[in-house]
Amino acid sequence: MKKKIGKQTYKFSLPININDTCSRVGPIEGEGPLKNYFHYIEQDDTLNEKTFEKAEHQFSIKTVMNLLEKSSTKKEDVDIYVAGDLLNQIITANATARDLSIPFWGIYNACASFCEGLQIASSMIDGGFFEKAVVSSTSHFSTAERQYRYPLELGTQAPPVSQRTVTGTGAVLLSKNGNGPYITHMTIGKVMDYNQDDPNNMGSAMAISACDTIYTHFRDTGFNIDDYDMILTGDLGKVGYNITIDYLKSQKNLDISGIYNDCGLLIYDLKSQDVMSGGSGAGCSASVFCSYIYSLMKEKKLNKILFCPTGALLSPVSTGQKDSIPCIAHAVTIENNPTL
Amino acid sequence: MKKKIGKQTYKFSLPININDTCSRVGPIEGEGPLKNYFHYIEQDDTLNEKTFEKAEHQFSIKTVMNLLEKSSTKKEDVDIYVAGDLLNQIITANATARDLSIPFWGIYNACASFCEGLQIASSMIDGGFFEKAVVSSTSHFSTAERQYRYPLELGTQAPPVSQRTVTGTGAVLLSKNGNGPYITHMTIGKVMDYNQDDPNNMGSAMAISACDTIYTHFRDTGFNIDDYDMILTGDLGKVGYNITIDYLKSQKNLDISGIYNDCGLLIYDLKSQDVMSGGSGAGCSASVFCSYIYSLMKEKKLNKILFCPTGALLSPVSTGQKDSIPCIAHAVTIENNPTL
Repeated sequence: MKKKIGKQTYKFSLPININDTCSRVGPIEGEGPLKNYFHYIEQDDTLNEKTFEKAEHQFSIKTVMNLLEKSSTKKEDVDIYVAGDLLNQIITANATARDLSIPFWGIYNACASFCEGLQIASSMIDGGFFEKAVVSSTSHFSTAERQYRYPLELGTQAPPVSQRTVTGTGAVLLSKNGNGPYITHMTIGKVMDYNQDDPNNMGSAMAISACDTIYTHFRDTGFNIDDYDMILTGDLGKVGYNITIDYLKSQKNLDISGIYNDCGLLIYDLKSQDVMSGGSGAGCSASVFCSYIYSLMKEKKLNKILFCPTGALLSPVSTGQKDSIPCIAHAVTIENNPTL
Repeated sequence: MKKKIGKQTYKFSLPININDTCSRVGPIEGEGPLKNYFHYIEQDDTLNEKTFEKAEHQFSIKTVMNLLEKSSTKKEDVDIYVAGDLLNQIITANATARDLSIPFWGIYNACASFCEGLQIASSMIDGGFFEKAVVSSTSHFSTAERQYRYPLELGTQAPPVSQRTVTGTGAVLLSKNGNGPYITHMTIGKVMDYNQDDPNNMGSAMAISACDTIYTHFRDTGFNIDDYDMILTGDLGKVGYNITIDYLKSQKNLDISGIYNDCGLLIYDLKSQDVMSGGSGAGCSASVFCSYIYSLMKEKKLNKILFCPTGALLSPVSTGQKDSIPCIAHAVTIENNPTL
C-alpha cells in the first residue's frame, strides 16, 4: 500500500494505537477549566528542587514513570523514547532519557515537538521497527521565561498578545494494538516565515504555519471539514486562533470555525486567569491532549480529530540579531474507528 | 522480516543507499589532513555575514543546495529534511529548513545528531514513507565557543583535554537505489552518565557512550571485529579515543584497536595544528563522513564500516548548576555489498 497520499501527507498502513497517556501540570494550570482531567496537579511548581530547570526535569521523568506504571509497562519493553522540550539543548529530555535508560532520539520543533514525536514514533511502529514507543514533551513557565525573555525577578510586564508558557508534561504510550484511539494519518509541516519578528506575539507568527498544514492536510487527503469532530491547534492563543479562522476562510475558502479549538485556549480561563492571550509551550498541547482530549475520545464524545501543534522556531540569539520567526506545524489524524 | 535483531539494533529490510554527499568546512579544517577530500573549503569563516550565527546558517544552506545540485535533485522531490546543530533551539537547522521549504523534522542529540538523522531517515525510507531524504548537521567554532564557553574576545585558554569545534557541514541524500554505499543496520543509543562534569573534557564523558553502543552493536548482531574494515567514532578526540580502546579491551574483551579511528582525530593534524585533543561538534563527524570516508567507500578502499557519532548532551545551564554530562552514541553499519 502506498503510504504517501499527497505532497506532505501519509496514511499509516496499520493504525497506531495510543494505548495510554499521562499528564502533569503546575498550580495555575490546575486551577483552569481542565482541572478535572489532568492526572497529576502539582501545587508547588518547584517540586522541592533547587532550580526551576531541575523541577522541569522532575515534571518530565515523574510523568513518564507514572505512564509506565499505569499502563503496566516495563521500561525494558519500550523500544524508543522520543522527547523534546524548550530548553537549550533540550536538557530536560536528555536528563529524562538518562533516568529511563531507554534508547533515545531527541527532537526539537519547539511547541510542535510533541506532534513531531507522534509522527516519528508512529511511523517507526508502522514500518516494523518498534513494538512500543513513549513520546513526551515538557515545558515550565519559570524556565522558559528566563530562557527566552527576562529573569522573573525583574517583574517585566507581559503584553496582552503574549501567551503564558504552560508548566506541564504530556506523555503517551504507542503500539500496534490497544484500547485507545488510533493515529491514522500525518501531515509533516514545512517551515514558514512571514517576517513577524516580535517574540511576544508568537500566536500570530505561528498561525500561518497552522493554516498551511491544515490546508495541505485537506488538499492531500481529500477529507472534508465534516469528516472531523474537531480541529485542534497546539498553542496559538486568542490572537493566532482568530487569524487562523480568518485566513483559512478568506484565502483558502475553508471554514473551520464550527469545529476549531486551540490547546492554548482550552487550558486556561482567559477571563479569570492572568494569562494574556492563552497558553503556549511544548507542554501545552501535550498535556491538553493527554488529559482532556484523550478522555473525550475514550468516551466517544470525540471520534475523529485533526491534532495540529504549532512551533515558533526562534532562539533568543536570533531575536537579538533581529531575525524574523520561522514557524512550523505538524498534524496527525486521531480516530476511534479507523477505516483500513 | 523481523527488523529488530537485538535489544537496540535493527536490520533494514532493504538497504538504504547514500546517493550522494556534500561537505563544506572552514579555513582551519581546510588546512588539515583531509583538505583534498572536502567539497568546499571557505577561507573566510564569516562568509561575509555580520554574525557568526548567520555565517553558520550559510554554511548549512549552501551545502544542502550544493548537494541537491550535484545530485541533480529538485528540492520538490525531497520528502523530508532532517537536521540538527549545536545552537540553542537548533536555529541553524530551522533557518535552513525555512530556506529549503522541504517538510522538516528537527533533531537534537548534540554531536550524534547526524547519526540520529541517518537512522530516522533510513527507517522512514525502509518503512515505505519517503522516497528521498536529506540529512545534514552543522557546527561552527565561533558560535559554539560563545554558546557553550566564553566570548572569543576574552581570549580564554583551552585546556589540553578539550577539543576544537569543527566549522563545517555535512549533508547526505538518501533513497532506495543509487550508486553509493548502503546503510544496513542501526544501533540506537541510550543516554549514559558516568558523573563526569567537566565541560572542557567531553571526550572522556562521551567515550563510555561509544563503548556501550559499540559493544551493544556486536552483541546484538553477532558480528565479529573482522567483519568490519573500520570502526569510526564521531568526535572523541585523543582522550576519548584512548579510553574507548582501553575500556572495551579490559572490560568487554573487545579489541577494536586494529580498525578503530575517530573523526575528531582525522580532521586535524594534532601535531601541527593548535586543536588540543582534536575536533568535535555536530559538523565534525558529518563533514568527515561526507568527504573522506564516503570517498574511500566509493573507491572500495573501505567496504564495511561501523559509523558511531557521539554526543555530549549538556547545556551551559546544566553545567552552571553542577550537573554531570549525559552522553549518547548512535551507530549505523554502512557497506558496499550488503547481504540481503
